[in-house]
Amino acid sequence: MNLRVPGPTPCPDVVLQAGAAPMVNHRGKEFAAVIEEVTANLKEIFQTKHDVLTLTASGTGAMEASVVNMLSPGDKVLCVSIGAFGDRLTSIAEAFGAQVIKLPFPVGTAADPGAIKDALSKDSEIKAVLVTHNETSTGVTNDIQAISKAVKEYDKLIIVDAISSMGSVPFPVDDWDCDVVMSGSQKGWMCPPGLAMVSVNERAWEAHKQAKMPRFYWDFTQTKRSLERNENPWTPAVSIFFSMQVALRLMKEEGMEVIYARQEKIGKMTREGVKSLGLSLFAEESHASNTVTAVTVPEGVQAGDLIRTIRDEHAVELAGGQASLTGKIFRIGHLGLVTEEDITQVLEALRESLPKVGFSGGLTAKTVQEAR
Amino acid sequence: MNLRVPGPTPCPDVVLQAGAAPMVNHRGKEFAAVIEEVTANLKEIFQTKHDVLTLTASGTGAMEASVVNMLSPGDKVLCVSIGAFGDRLTSIAEAFGAQVIKLPFPVGTAADPGAIKDALSKDSEIKAVLVTHNETSTGVTNDIQAISKAVKEYDKLIIVDAISSMGSVPFPVDDWDCDVVMSGSQKGWMCPPGLAMVSVNERAWEAHKQAKMPRFYWDFTQTKRSLERNENPWTPAVSIFFSMQVALRLMKEEGMEVIYARQEKIGKMTREGVKSLGLSLFAEESHASNTVTAVTVPEGVQAGDLIRTIRDEHAVELAGGQASLTGKIFRIGHLGLVTEEDITQVLEALRESLPKVGFSGGLTAKTVQEAR
Repeated sequence: MNLRVPGPTPCPDVVLQAGAAPMVNHRGKEFAAVIEEVTANLKEIFQTKHDVLTLTASGTGAMEASVVNMLSPGDKVLCVSIGAFGDRLTSIAEAFGAQVIKLPFPVGTAADPGAIKDALSKDSEIKAVLVTHNETSTGVTNDIQAISKAVKEYDKLIIVDAISSMGSVPFPVDDWDCDVVMSGSQKGWMCPPGLAMVSVNERAWEAHKQAKMPRFYWDFTQTKRSLERNENPWTPAVSIFFSMQVALRLMKEEGMEVIYARQEKIGKMTREGVKSLGLSLFAEESHASNTVTAVTVPEGVQAGDLIRTIRDEHAVELAGGQASLTGKIFRIGHLGLVTEEDITQVLEALRESLPKVGFSGGLTAKTVQEAR
Repeated sequence: MNLRVPGPTPCPDVVLQAGAAPMVNHRGKEFAAVIEEVTANLKEIFQTKHDVLTLTASGTGAMEASVVNMLSPGDKVLCVSIGAFGDRLTSIAEAFGAQVIKLPFPVGTAADPGAIKDALSKDSEIKAVLVTHNETSTGVTNDIQAISKAVKEYDKLIIVDAISSMGSVPFPVDDWDCDVVMSGSQKGWMCPPGLAMVSVNERAWEAHKQAKMPRFYWDFTQTKRSLERNENPWTPAVSIFFSMQVALRLMKEEGMEVIYARQEKIGKMTREGVKSLGLSLFAEESHASNTVTAVTVPEGVQAGDLIRTIRDEHAVELAGGQASLTGKIFRIGHLGLVTEEDITQVLEALRESLPKVGFSGGLTAKTVQEAR
């Protein structure tokens, strides 16, 4: 199966095999060395000299952890949302009693840093800005550098969901002065899901000291204290740490600049390929994601039919739309382990399948014939 | 390495290899079938016809989930503790604003159901009782059947940490009328850590409806709603689900009664073996655990020296004491994948190592000679 959902991503065999190593004592020397190496390599890729904490959870756990470690009930926060994952961050802040000011942008578009600045200028009580870097549900990448600059003009905390971007597209955490940035093992890291990572800088640690939202499992103080001994406070996902150790070595071997260039090239190739089939990109192209491409389901086609046909006849697994976008878009994941051949296969599968599920628009008669 | 810490436990090769299978779409049919099978088998072993939810987290995550889904801030709860994990459950309840009434028992002893009944009779406002089944830090198993009976006489909710017992010792959840019972993949289930499971009965669902502690990642309503489609609300630990699928098949093949008998026999063998070396069991023997044995570090011996010697010279990994018991006890894990040969190796390692680290008491001259 050519697994082209935006996570879990395919994992290299050596990464999977590393995860199948026998268990070890999670409080022993051998495992401490794994945590030490993984943490050092994560810090390199996050481009931060500050802390990168690891949590046994999926990405949503890291989102919750970031909220409850930084805020107190009643704190005013600006929640920027451009899709389902921005909405999720908003819901978490609300669930824990933050006073949420919503700043939504239409799905398919990116957040406007100017609008964020406006919102901050109107309310000096806002304590933090929650924002998604790469919105997996719409295939849009926000300009976090510009957003962070706007937030820092007002000296507020910025908490960034980079779950589906970190490690795949450049995100220099310290240069962009982002206080809390999260990611998840099953995205660009080419590992199974179950491990989440969060960077925490000095400003974030200061905020953490004042933050009164209730927490235990996610508590950053406990996590940091354990990490100083290269441990986790609770029993960590040992097998996923083993996978991550090897995956990070592979990433360093390939080189981050090479990975970023590959991701960019593949993003472009996916978008050009989709358009050449007569389909429309869902995301505004100026902010189209290089890790996931959302495509508008053309008229006359049922998204479910298309996805099923492509899976059953071509062994290519695509993702549908989420929440309000169900049936309206389909998504091609291209982060982590992905080659140009993988995308060619996706495009060929689309070319052959679209006419079978009712699509003719956009394809010239000749193209349709070629596709058959 | 003969890994004899009380979790992570050794995993059978087929279980590890199952976890190394290629990733799949966590919202696809193939993975739904895995969740369906795992859930059905978990229910069988929990001996419940009610729900068993799966969470991507370690056991402590399941503890937090159980608290925040059942209680509201200000709720009065009776926290029974016989060691570090009972204390942890207490700390979680406190962190989320419960009004905690502590009922501690001396480490090494079991909780007295009569004392629990007394506490309940004195305060009708108590809403729930939090209690550990098998206290991993002291090697004591509480009599949950009797405790649950006491709790039910007062019609209160009982929330049980069975993380290191479920699947290894009999715990018929419905028969014993326990409302919320949790476990973790890295214990008797012979899987890597990262997946936690929680059973929830009707009384617990009623309590959940009123429970106002803030939650998002752990929310049982969301988990149950997704589970109805054989999904998890967030990206689950796919590889550990794969492992769990195979591990549960192995457990059913061996037969639960056979497993329980094996665990009982091995527990007894461990305790008898330890005593025959002239060492003292830390736990009161009437309630000694069949999954972990705590041994008092004899006078003149440094726990660290003993553990290190046994690891370096015999490739046997034991656990030290936790919190206040650091240096005072060492622990032998014998849950999940464990044979009599594994325990014989532990006892031989102890027999040979003890004299080297300063122990002579209890061993006759002849025994010491034999050991050398």
